Amino acid sequence: MADLTEAQARDREDPLAPFRARFRGDPDLVYLDGNSLGRLPDHTPDRLADVISRQWGERLIRSWSEGWLDLPLEVGDAIAAAVLGAAAGQVAVADATTVCFYKLAAAAIGARPGRREIVSDLHDFPTDRYVLESLAHGHQMTIRWIDSDPAGGPEPAEVAALLSEATALVSLSHVTYRSGHRADMAAINALSHEAGALTLWDLSHSAGSVPLQLDRDGCDLAVGCTYKYLCGGPGSPAYLYVARALQSQLRQPIWGWLGRADPFAMAPGYVAADGIRGFLSGTPPILSLAAVDAGVALIAEAGIDAIAEKGSRLGSFLIAAADERLAPHGVSVATPRDAARRGAHVALAHPRAHALTDALIRAGVVVDFRAPDVIRAGLAPLSTSYADVWAFIDTLDSLLAGAGVTAQWR
Amino acid sequence: MADLTEAQARDREDPLAPFRARFRGDPDLVYLDGNSLGRLPDHTPDRLADVISRQWGERLIRSWSEGWLDLPLEVGDAIAAAVLGAAAGQVAVADATTVCFYKLAAAAIGARPGRREIVSDLHDFPTDRYVLESLAHGHQMTIRWIDSDPAGGPEPAEVAALLSEATALVSLSHVTYRSGHRADMAAINALSHEAGALTLWDLSHSAGSVPLQLDRDGCDLAVGCTYKYLCGGPGSPAYLYVARALQSQLRQPIWGWLGRADPFAMAPGYVAADGIRGFLSGTPPILSLAAVDAGVALIAEAGIDAIAEKGSRLGSFLIAAADERLAPHGVSVATPRDAARRGAHVALAHPRAHALTDALIRAGVVVDFRAPDVIRAGLAPLSTSYADVWAFIDTLDSLLAGAGVTAQWR
Repeated sequence: MADLTEAQARDREDPLAPFRARFRGDPDLVYLDGNSLGRLPDHTPDRLADVISRQWGERLIRSWSEGWLDLPLEVGDAIAAAVLGAAAGQVAVADATTVCFYKLAAAAIGARPGRREIVSDLHDFPTDRYVLESLAHGHQMTIRWIDSDPAGGPEPAEVAALLSEATALVSLSHVTYRSGHRADMAAINALSHEAGALTLWDLSHSAGSVPLQLDRDGCDLAVGCTYKYLCGGPGSPAYLYVARALQSQLRQPIWGWLGRADPFAMAPGYVAADGIRGFLSGTPPILSLAAVDAGVALIAEAGIDAIAEKGSRLGSFLIAAADERLAPHGVSVATPRDAARRGAHVALAHPRAHALTDALIRAGVVVDFRAPDVIRAGLAPLSTSYADVWAFIDTLDSLLAGAGVTAQWR
Repeated sequence: MADLTEAQARDREDPLAPFRARFRGDPDLVYLDGNSLGRLPDHTPDRLADVISRQWGERLIRSWSEGWLDLPLEVGDAIAAAVLGAAAGQVAVADATTVCFYKLAAAAIGARPGRREIVSDLHDFPTDRYVLESLAHGHQMTIRWIDSDPAGGPEPAEVAALLSEATALVSLSHVTYRSGHRADMAAINALSHEAGALTLWDLSHSAGSVPLQLDRDGCDLAVGCTYKYLCGGPGSPAYLYVARALQSQLRQPIWGWLGRADPFAMAPGYVAADGIRGFLSGTPPILSLAAVDAGVALIAEAGIDAIAEKGSRLGSFLIAAADERLAPHGVSVATPRDAARRGAHVALAHPRAHALTDALIRAGVVVDFRAPDVIRAGLAPLSTSYADVWAFIDTLDSLLAGAGVTAQWR
């Protein structure tokens, strides 16, 4: 029975419940959008104030040699250890997700000369599709699109059907931004490698919410966003992962001074720095990097296994409640029901999803709309309670049952 | 006569002197590196605290529609008006300088198909040279390098000598990072256009310190850094300028969702947004953008003409003092003596420049070293006093005259 009493009982038993108080903001807001912009960790403002007032304001340029220059790799290693299942020296943080994705996709294509095809998913996140289109256009390549189930995502068999000796790159999201479908990463890596292709995973909706084992599962390349589950703040820089064995074989295209060996020699001719540093380009964004570091520290403290377990339970609670309370109103679950096959957000489909989303937000329940018919509820495990999930279901039920939602809500 | 009395008299007469108190940090530090990392404006911490605690912490995802999405273009317009001499709608802020430079250089090359040459300067800032090398490599092009005077910079005649019907792009820094030489932008634009080439200017050491008239002077493309004279903080995002007439003809290569028309439709197929927005790629870095906005506001308040005038006077004061006090120790001025031909930093050459730079920093005079033999003094006009310049000259004189600088300083 999905009711408030049950939700409150689950909150009392939740070992991660104390983490809810570690975030700032209105405690009465039902915030189910932590998969889009994570909440502000309690200790982040102090960390940023130190970077701003002391490191920038007092130490000024000297801070570059007092820690700033190493921050992209240090925060990368912290993310690798906390959520990626990756050994040190394979992750760097810098640039927007779009830029990191471009760099790694271009590097992969360059490492498979003569292969003229890319495999991706028609329903993947737009920026990934657009970047692949740009690279395909520039390199006279063809994209073979999987047309996956919109309430699911790309399956190994669908990838296998498009792989051939022509495939340079397979690029997919681990957890799909719309449905929350979690792909079988290990199987798709294995299939791709069998065909001689490289894999590039977008972990934006995955890292920090579900367990990852990039090294064990044979990932080649990955990128991900830090402002969702990692709580790095609006527009914080992305991370990129390049498996150690590939680092000397791949060359990213944006040759900048901080990716060069011995950058301060300012010497003629680009020579990539060894290791993951060679995948950096320009000067790293220090304020945001510090915020990412603070966010990742909170995730590391809670532990990704406990976080993933709670995310799974929150999702199952939401789905059961939706079946019971919302299905009679024509709402359907557009997310895999098997917790092992989804991330930490749930999509509910309804023809009036857009208007319902606006109405929910006005009622203090922040979710988001994804065209054409999805209300997306992000269940960032550290900052979301079962009572939040109940409030969402109950409010949506009221909206659907009552005088309710008309054109005026738009 | 360059002495402390003279410096103090000049400070008393300086109409911009009150702006020195508008920056935070140790007032006793002689900071001559504002051309590398600008000081922290007094009002920036409050602006950032609002972004962090209210916009992120309280408003959360709703802030995207409450101003964040427009910030890259709003701050771009503010920079255009304050320091670039550019009409609105031509400047966007996002991504590292290296990434912006890559995007615009690639766009220019794409707009001149069949032309196989790029003209640049062997002594230009490393990241610009490396990006051009990468693009030349990827597009089977040749770079025709100017070998400009290391104590000067690229002259129109040197550009003219390399231009031909094969030239796609001329890319130079307006003010050279090492010598401080200021190029004749209007003349080089005219010559390049006569040959059918596009121009791309790096304004990192120029904007905010010398007057610019990008529109009037016929610039096609420009990028610049915001953490130097614009005081945006460490690693703050760069701006890019695309002349309005070119915006529909040029296509940047990193096709991201926020550069697409109607991004939230998340529709298939990339279609560039109209205008300068089509040159954006990924999610903009909000914290840093707010800091840039705060820095630019201070520059706008002081006015670029007054700033440039003071920069010119500080440079002349420094050069006269160096001639008088340091030339006897073998120090030479490696910056144009004509104020109209230089920016707001001055290079002094000495064989032991590296050790002297370290010794100056230990003595509380922050300058920087540029290989092989330059001590570079940045005279960010709003935060630098004549007394700072005097302290630099006097300390360097003492170091050179005294028991002084030996290997131990390294």
